[in-house]
Amino acid sequence: MRVCLIGAGNLATQLGMALSEKGHHIVQVWSRTAQSATNLSSKLNCPSTTDLSALVSEADIYIVAVSDKAIEAILAKHSWGNALVVHTSGSTPMDILSRYCTNFGVFYPFQTFTIAKKVVFDEVPICIEANTPQNLEILTNLAQSISRNIKLIDSGQRQQIHLAAVFACNFVNHFYAIGEALLQEKGIEFDILKPLILETAAKAVAQSPGNSQTGPASRNDQDIMNKHLALLENHPDLKALYETISERIIHTIK
Amino acid sequence: MRVCLIGAGNLATQLGMALSEKGHHIVQVWSRTAQSATNLSSKLNCPSTTDLSALVSEADIYIVAVSDKAIEAILAKHSWGNALVVHTSGSTPMDILSRYCTNFGVFYPFQTFTIAKKVVFDEVPICIEANTPQNLEILTNLAQSISRNIKLIDSGQRQQIHLAAVFACNFVNHFYAIGEALLQEKGIEFDILKPLILETAAKAVAQSPGNSQTGPASRNDQDIMNKHLALLENHPDLKALYETISERIIHTIK
Repeated sequence: MRVCLIGAGNLATQLGMALSEKGHHIVQVWSRTAQSATNLSSKLNCPSTTDLSALVSEADIYIVAVSDKAIEAILAKHSWGNALVVHTSGSTPMDILSRYCTNFGVFYPFQTFTIAKKVVFDEVPICIEANTPQNLEILTNLAQSISRNIKLIDSGQRQQIHLAAVFACNFVNHFYAIGEALLQEKGIEFDILKPLILETAAKAVAQSPGNSQTGPASRNDQDIMNKHLALLENHPDLKALYETISERIIHTIK
Repeated sequence: MRVCLIGAGNLATQLGMALSEKGHHIVQVWSRTAQSATNLSSKLNCPSTTDLSALVSEADIYIVAVSDKAIEAILAKHSWGNALVVHTSGSTPMDILSRYCTNFGVFYPFQTFTIAKKVVFDEVPICIEANTPQNLEILTNLAQSISRNIKLIDSGQRQQIHLAAVFACNFVNHFYAIGEALLQEKGIEFDILKPLILETAAKAVAQSPGNSQTGPASRNDQDIMNKHLALLENHPDLKALYETISERIIHTIK
């Protein structure tokens, strides 16, 4: 397919590269800043623009992969005619597109993206939704060209999936960072935590995390929890967090 | 080495199997209950007992792999003579052994263990500490027979490592479980989260988690955070947790 990529951030970069590798033709990249537009267009070997009125008209699909708050402003600044337009957001309903486009949908790759780390899309769930069966078929084909894992997900479900991801990915990463900082305090390298982080994730994937909680709170081991709270004496915020989450775990296990 | 294994829980089971596979001779398993003693001794093809006074005397090392609060009672109930005795606890200082033993140390495999999921020890950090250089050498050799990743860690550092693990493993698993429960509410299978969980862990191992935070809080995207808080209206505890951790992330990124 001929793809016009609107956005040049983490997701646009990884998605653009994956589509390009699978033989799709990225016909143009738009970004708000010339620097990021050029960065991505040079990777994808295609033209770029920072001017929405200069968007090409011959693309089969326009993928709006920008931050949620920028989506509507971009939609409003261009006449889309009959073009198929999708956004890639977890938390923005599909309906927002109906005000500006005739053919539209959502193409939400459910993964964490950074520009520097290449994502292998094969197993990434692509959550799709469209305003007509025909558009859904086009999105299904596009999604299947980069992943084996296609999900038909409506806007309500997609919001909940995004919320679940904040807990299971963003907050998890913050807790890795807390572990990293606690080790640093005592001059211990973060490396020592890596096998544990990988095994914890592998275990969650192999069996339900709700049924495989381990640690002092899951055993209601007050002695160890008190020792840990004493170690956190100089970190009142972490101490409060430790207490709150331990209470939740104790309550859940019971 | 001839190993006497005191305990038959998650860690004792996985450690016993790993040592046995590498050619060590598990001469006996002790457990408080006959059932768990027999379960493990049948896996290791060795005798078992529930009577501490019936411990064999010819082992090269006695590994006390029981819950922290049970360690001291077990140490007090047997005369150890010159035997080398270690515990496997993250949060119990080595000193506790000095009251009951002449030769002692700590052998702490830093990993999460469940009986059902086999652990590959090759990369598991084994944190060791001993009361003499000779005993340290024995523990080093034993550790190196099952892992490439040996760390000399004193009791203060080990406590901090255990604390870091509560955040980066136990609390992380609880957050996976929250994600699982939120999906379940909307009839969405947990499977959809698995690629994200694995990628988040892989990313933390590849680059510092403190420097690679993603998500709405890291962008201080108040619109999305408010949408998420609205979705959590019926879960006041999760709402409070969402607010607390998002605030921490916003504060950290700034």
